Amino acid sequence: MNGAESLLRTAAAAGVDVCFANPGTTEMPMVLALERVPEIRPVLCLFEGVCTGAADGYGRMAGKPALTLLHLGPGFANGIAYLHDARRARSPIVNLIGEHATWHIAADAPLNSDIESLARPVSAWLRRNVSSQTLARDAAEAVAAANISPGQIATLIIPHDCQIEDSAGAAAPLAPATPPSPPADAIRRAAELLREAAHPALFLGGLALTARSLAAAARIRSSTDCRLICETFPKRLERGSGLPVVERLPYFPEPAMSMLAAHDAIVLAGAREPVSFFGYPGLPSYFIRTETAKHTLAGPQEDVEAALEALADEIRKPDDVQRRDDAKRPERPSGAITLESFGAAIASVQSENVIVMDEGNTSSFYYFGLAAGAPRFTHLAQPGGAIGLGMPVATGAAVAAPDRTVINLQADGSAMYTIQALWTQAREGLKIKTVLCNNGGYRVLGVEMQRAGVREFSPRLQSLIGLVDPKPDWVKLAGGMGVPAERVERAEDLAAALERSLDEPGPYFIEAIFS
Amino acid sequence: MNGAESLLRTAAAAGVDVCFANPGTTEMPMVLALERVPEIRPVLCLFEGVCTGAADGYGRMAGKPALTLLHLGPGFANGIAYLHDARRARSPIVNLIGEHATWHIAADAPLNSDIESLARPVSAWLRRNVSSQTLARDAAEAVAAANISPGQIATLIIPHDCQIEDSAGAAAPLAPATPPSPPADAIRRAAELLREAAHPALFLGGLALTARSLAAAARIRSSTDCRLICETFPKRLERGSGLPVVERLPYFPEPAMSMLAAHDAIVLAGAREPVSFFGYPGLPSYFIRTETAKHTLAGPQEDVEAALEALADEIRKPDDVQRRDDAKRPERPSGAITLESFGAAIASVQSENVIVMDEGNTSSFYYFGLAAGAPRFTHLAQPGGAIGLGMPVATGAAVAAPDRTVINLQADGSAMYTIQALWTQAREGLKIKTVLCNNGGYRVLGVEMQRAGVREFSPRLQSLIGLVDPKPDWVKLAGGMGVPAERVERAEDLAAALERSLDEPGPYFIEAIFS
Repeated sequence: MNGAESLLRTAAAAGVDVCFANPGTTEMPMVLALERVPEIRPVLCLFEGVCTGAADGYGRMAGKPALTLLHLGPGFANGIAYLHDARRARSPIVNLIGEHATWHIAADAPLNSDIESLARPVSAWLRRNVSSQTLARDAAEAVAAANISPGQIATLIIPHDCQIEDSAGAAAPLAPATPPSPPADAIRRAAELLREAAHPALFLGGLALTARSLAAAARIRSSTDCRLICETFPKRLERGSGLPVVERLPYFPEPAMSMLAAHDAIVLAGAREPVSFFGYPGLPSYFIRTETAKHTLAGPQEDVEAALEALADEIRKPDDVQRRDDAKRPERPSGAITLESFGAAIASVQSENVIVMDEGNTSSFYYFGLAAGAPRFTHLAQPGGAIGLGMPVATGAAVAAPDRTVINLQADGSAMYTIQALWTQAREGLKIKTVLCNNGGYRVLGVEMQRAGVREFSPRLQSLIGLVDPKPDWVKLAGGMGVPAERVERAEDLAAALERSLDEPGPYFIEAIFS
Repeated sequence: MNGAESLLRTAAAAGVDVCFANPGTTEMPMVLALERVPEIRPVLCLFEGVCTGAADGYGRMAGKPALTLLHLGPGFANGIAYLHDARRARSPIVNLIGEHATWHIAADAPLNSDIESLARPVSAWLRRNVSSQTLARDAAEAVAAANISPGQIATLIIPHDCQIEDSAGAAAPLAPATPPSPPADAIRRAAELLREAAHPALFLGGLALTARSLAAAARIRSSTDCRLICETFPKRLERGSGLPVVERLPYFPEPAMSMLAAHDAIVLAGAREPVSFFGYPGLPSYFIRTETAKHTLAGPQEDVEAALEALADEIRKPDDVQRRDDAKRPERPSGAITLESFGAAIASVQSENVIVMDEGNTSSFYYFGLAAGAPRFTHLAQPGGAIGLGMPVATGAAVAAPDRTVINLQADGSAMYTIQALWTQAREGLKIKTVLCNNGGYRVLGVEMQRAGVREFSPRLQSLIGLVDPKPDWVKLAGGMGVPAERVERAEDLAAALERSLDEPGPYFIEAIFS
């Protein structure tokens, strides 16, 4: 058994079953080894950002890492943006990078570069394998590192000769690390604050947004009347009927600060203290006022689910009656597609158990609130802010959850970054329904310009934020990638098209023209 | 004048006139400043790799840097792969990265990351601006660094607050650095070797492939009967009628070593010693045998044009008669599209003064040799090996040379990486004729697998190297990006379609189906 096979067998033994691949020459031994390790399903992506974004989506839904298979420094570089997102999402991922043979590095061949320097900013664990004999052990450690709760990025650089030389066989999986429990003091202090404050809030992120965590949060709310707020861009949030309504922290500083200023005590669970996405002149970085009592129940890497349950137990009144949220589902809209009718169209027809990847950006502004009353579903967002991850994350989520339908709300500006993901969706027959929000440009940049005081947009400025001249023909683009597509210009047609597509097999693409 | 405007005015004063942009919020002050610096033409690209690849193409043709405008770490990361290529091409580029405000960095906002670690592997010059007052000076130094012959990549990281605060105005351009002349000894030794060897060769790269250098090389060949060989993937090579025929070093080690083994003396001019693209077991990294006399006339960063002229003067016999190459142009082919007929179709119709970007990879195997007798033209290749740069480089070349037609020979596997470049070609009305070589996959990986001993391709293996199931519809994809397109399946139709398109304005796209 060569090094490459020992690596893949080790990964498979540790529970890895998918590899998102865009391989080149230095990864060929690993590609060939995939032949002999049928437990791992290779998924070809036509751009590396699709591989890494898909691994992020897979990790969020499966709770375990997929492999990516990437070609040297430049191939890895194409995957960095969505590894950045995955790092912020704390998704488990194991990157495998084929490197030049050890003896060939000194020749500085054209594709040679400093891979470590590229990988370090996005990798919690980073290693260069030095021998086929230790490759299995390196693989076991990489998977274990990726599995450190809630998830991390592990990157293993593997020289070509170490892949092809003899190994000592597969290595046994390492025991999974248990996430540290928050200290009892942290729970007591949280209970105290929530009980004593006039207007307490629980600020939830990461694993505080699982169904288990939310059940505990609902109990806490029952006893303390605290407000439930989540991060602006949650990694994964369970939503809909039967779950407590969680409000989302607004994106821009003014409304975010105003929301938080209404509370005299804020308990953080699974989330870092919220900060401004960008630094705006005259506005602070941190959103919670200094006079607000602020306390961390459990950090993102602690056992936040257990901590919320312990907190719920700690503060429960004996005669506790659970409040139930009765969020209403919106009516099916009709007329022009606006921010409101767009949100209503999706929320009114999305079926039970769907996964919604929301990269609608400005276009899905109203959707989040309107979907609170939809049947139970999973909401995914972009915690790292690198746009274009919607299609890849949807791809990986669908691979991880083949029995569920994925709805990808996709802004048009962002859609162009990794449109190649559609091809993989077609190749794999993934049940992903993309709703492309065509508003003709990078709308958020227009908003930012207005914030910066620009009142009039010259043609030159307009040209830098507009996807016009020419307008992309999204139906052709999707069709060219092998995904059937249609265009709708009215909200009722959008709702009907989405509803019709939900139960059909395979991917579908709906271009929604905003008025 | 704020920092952003001082930066752009400084760049404009130093001769910069194009900015390939994919900006986000932290670059807004620079976008707004572009309004006030009309000397710099902004070109919007819908993916950062298009920006950097276009800047590479622009730099190769214009001999001076364009700006790129990229968003934070993740945006820059998307541009790294083609900066890697540009670094190997030694193209001049100035990257501008908008960074979070200095006071906001500590908050570690979602898009915050270690930009320096990402930028270092591809940047010869790298600086983080610390004040609006020094931004103009930093810009002047960045342009000067990029202009160090033959070209370098300079990366300037600019915090948002430094862009918006007051500056002291534009800075004067710095005096350009003169490339060092090779020592007289290097020229004398080269002359000695070429005169005394039985079978001498000149190995040319970088600036040794300009028209001026090639004129000198022709004189040297007249006197010494040396063979002219160029790098496998030249940055820019002047070719066709009136210029000496330069043979290209083969890609794979065996034919490359065999070509070089025929020579007892090899003089390197503007090129590094050739090494294997990948390290193959049992084959060496370096192609020139130790028993061959090897000498560097001038390194890539020395004044190689002057060195070749000095060498030509040194070895010229008094009765020198210049040999003229009479390479024949191929006949217009007909029949199925094969490697041979593809090459002949392009070479038989390409018009005078075209720029050919050759990212045909395996598909353009025969084209290079067949094009030796074409009318005078410029050939561009991919010195860094990061595939997908064809469309972006063609885009930048067309911006730099608006009076010339660009033909982009584009492999299908590679085409998918940065297909968004087509939109910019349509937006800017660039005269680029893309010939998409559809052979249904990453053919080179099939070749590599055969080299690795694989005789039979299982469906699983085949699926990892094939762009099939589904086949992309390239005509739809190009049309979706706004570029008119057609599909051809016969060599005569390919030749006719290309010929017809050459004089038409704007971009065109021809999908050539290989048999």
